[in-house]
Amino acid sequence: MELVFIRHGLSEWNALNLFTGWRDVNLSEKGVEEAKEAGRKLKAAGFEFDIAFTSVLTRAIKTCNLVLEESNQLWVPQIKTWRLNERHYGGLQGLNKAEAAAEHGDEQVRIWRRSYDVLPPVLDPKDPNSAHNDRRYAHLPADVVPDCENLKVTLERVLPFWEDQIAPAIKAGKRVLVAAHGNSLRALAKHIEGISDADIMDLEIPTGQPLVYTLDDNLKVVSKRYL
Amino acid sequence: MELVFIRHGLSEWNALNLFTGWRDVNLSEKGVEEAKEAGRKLKAAGFEFDIAFTSVLTRAIKTCNLVLEESNQLWVPQIKTWRLNERHYGGLQGLNKAEAAAEHGDEQVRIWRRSYDVLPPVLDPKDPNSAHNDRRYAHLPADVVPDCENLKVTLERVLPFWEDQIAPAIKAGKRVLVAAHGNSLRALAKHIEGISDADIMDLEIPTGQPLVYTLDDNLKVVSKRYL
Repeated sequence: MELVFIRHGLSEWNALNLFTGWRDVNLSEKGVEEAKEAGRKLKAAGFEFDIAFTSVLTRAIKTCNLVLEESNQLWVPQIKTWRLNERHYGGLQGLNKAEAAAEHGDEQVRIWRRSYDVLPPVLDPKDPNSAHNDRRYAHLPADVVPDCENLKVTLERVLPFWEDQIAPAIKAGKRVLVAAHGNSLRALAKHIEGISDADIMDLEIPTGQPLVYTLDDNLKVVSKRYL
Repeated sequence: MELVFIRHGLSEWNALNLFTGWRDVNLSEKGVEEAKEAGRKLKAAGFEFDIAFTSVLTRAIKTCNLVLEESNQLWVPQIKTWRLNERHYGGLQGLNKAEAAAEHGDEQVRIWRRSYDVLPPVLDPKDPNSAHNDRRYAHLPADVVPDCENLKVTLERVLPFWEDQIAPAIKAGKRVLVAAHGNSLRALAKHIEGISDADIMDLEIPTGQPLVYTLDDNLKVVSKRYL
């Protein structure tokens, strides 16, 4: 059984070096090109999908759509879920990484970025950019909508979607594409590759490179390769 | 209750005056612009959607995606179904309209295009372009996959999807977008507007113009307007 991950390419804020998280920033032109190129690679390698999963953030959905379109399978069913969203970066969202370091110190920012279980500052739920004020999350209980996340918390909210939707689809023989974000894919990778808390932050999944896993019957990773 | 239809814009084959039907032709550049403009109009008018329905043909899905993206709601759940596909034009698919007239006569082609219940020639199921040889329809029983359709048959396969998915969504209070084709939308319009067999072929839904219906509790049309 194979499973393909694709991390979205460069967004408009990546280019500006801003913390993005749940802010709904579009792909840059380069990000669009990365997604199309990934679609062409998958097509050339003969990949066909039966279902695609993505987040509710534009940059991942658009990556998913461009990959499917370029590989002549835009018709493949697509499920969008907040559980595949990027890690919520709390009060850091919208800050330039240099500004954040000036305000909080280099070491503190490094810890927020690189530690598995330290939470960044919360984003005020009354902030107009809070997910609490975004209708795409209005169906969720308020205490489920995060104000900040570390990777541990990200994994805890990604995992139920893996268990309930992605894993059963793979077990049913479906060929699955997951188009998502650096940290939601890292969380899934930690789970299926069995990576420790100590080692997971060193795993970097490159943008726009289809990551192909071969899985055993228990959906654990037998091998992985980038196209 | 409101319901919005959008007919996809100019495709690469519309521009060449070819019968398209179920052939999976992409939007032309003009078609992309029409879809984006529709999205901007919907955004300017404050339209928000809770769910979007489209066909399994690229030109409709892409129209749906561009409308949602331009109105800042690409995250809205989207269901793709073969039941919203364009009318299957059988053996005429891929023919230039002038060639078809030269081969079959102007009057015969006019009848195939304008009659409610006369079937066009069948497309050989062994033809490489037949839907029988396309994996997106592989889950369907072979006798459900059409080899040609008139509008009557198109309506018969669109209607179950209206009854099972679109109508219940509207009744549940969801704001629905349907991004589809000239004839699948005409079939739905016949049903909700109560247009007769004799009159329906005169209904032309323009491309790229959001069509907004106001519906009563029985989902019959109270009023309609184009944005």
